[in-house]
Amino acid sequence: MDYYSKQITKLIEQFSRLPGIGPKSAQRLAFHLIHMPKEQVQELASVMVEARENVRYCSQCYTLTDQEVCPICSNAARDHKTIMVVENTRDLAAYEKTGKYEGVYHVLHGAISPMLGIGPGDIKLKELMERLQGDVNEVIIATNSSLEGETTAMYISKLIKPTGIKVSRIASGVPVGGDLEYIDEVTLLRALEGRTEI
Amino acid sequence: MDYYSKQITKLIEQFSRLPGIGPKSAQRLAFHLIHMPKEQVQELASVMVEARENVRYCSQCYTLTDQEVCPICSNAARDHKTIMVVENTRDLAAYEKTGKYEGVYHVLHGAISPMLGIGPGDIKLKELMERLQGDVNEVIIATNSSLEGETTAMYISKLIKPTGIKVSRIASGVPVGGDLEYIDEVTLLRALEGRTEI
Repeated sequence: MDYYSKQITKLIEQFSRLPGIGPKSAQRLAFHLIHMPKEQVQELASVMVEARENVRYCSQCYTLTDQEVCPICSNAARDHKTIMVVENTRDLAAYEKTGKYEGVYHVLHGAISPMLGIGPGDIKLKELMERLQGDVNEVIIATNSSLEGETTAMYISKLIKPTGIKVSRIASGVPVGGDLEYIDEVTLLRALEGRTEI
Repeated sequence: MDYYSKQITKLIEQFSRLPGIGPKSAQRLAFHLIHMPKEQVQELASVMVEARENVRYCSQCYTLTDQEVCPICSNAARDHKTIMVVENTRDLAAYEKTGKYEGVYHVLHGAISPMLGIGPGDIKLKELMERLQGDVNEVIIATNSSLEGETTAMYISKLIKPTGIKVSRIASGVPVGGDLEYIDEVTLLRALEGRTEI
């Protein structure tokens, strides 16, 4: 890529390493950046560095936060006896957006996957078990409805059962507004198995 | 977005201001960044700031470069008497990728658009006319085949004609590999008008 100056080429290379950014988008981003006001570029750069420097795991639920204890765990109004287990911070955010869940979370940062060589020791499972030494009423397993998510759910459930703490799994089924015609068979069977009386 | 820490929220906001990056991509980018090694984040940030600080216009052709004179203009092996006029540096790069053009360029940084209030004074047209005081054989107008590009081409052509310098326009027509069935009527008519004997 001789036709761009070295610094533009370097910028395009850097951008194209980011997920979901192909060579064309990287080029567009680079040229956009070069036309942005200097102060805005500096701000973007420093927000990036600062976020990377300061964001760490919450010492209780292991979500990503810039404090020792995240805002959810430090909120006394939440039900600290109900723990929802999720795979990552984005899944936590998805449930927070509903605005209806009042318990706290535990973020695993992954799911068990024999295929990818990710075992129980590679996710924040030991940390979950430690939390259960405290006063906990229920653990809601909200890992994804994928093979890895289900495997992880089963594993956690078996681990917790002996402690006598209630373990539940979020329901699988037809998404609200979903048209049966377009739903895969596995989901349809799950929805049937999980039917409730009305 | 209370469910993320302040710094993650700020990062997502910054990313979603970039072109072609929606809220979901911004979120994915932010989390990717937080999991990147610190040194890589610092490098990305400094490449961004440096590129913005150092990239400027080539004093001859006005392409974006980090030198006083860009590598193409300072290459003695190129034909400096043939100038291809393009709208921006990406268009220059597109022609450079063909590897077949041996002349130099002139980057307008825009096209005349009465709709957007961009007049001849808003693009590097005065600078082009100054270059034509030198020894120039031909000006090839390679602005886009859009309304603005065509308007700009016509305008430049009229401006240059009196100087006696040859002015040409790149051909419009059916793209190579293009299926006539899917080509718009305007392009088909252009292709017909521009037919050449074989």
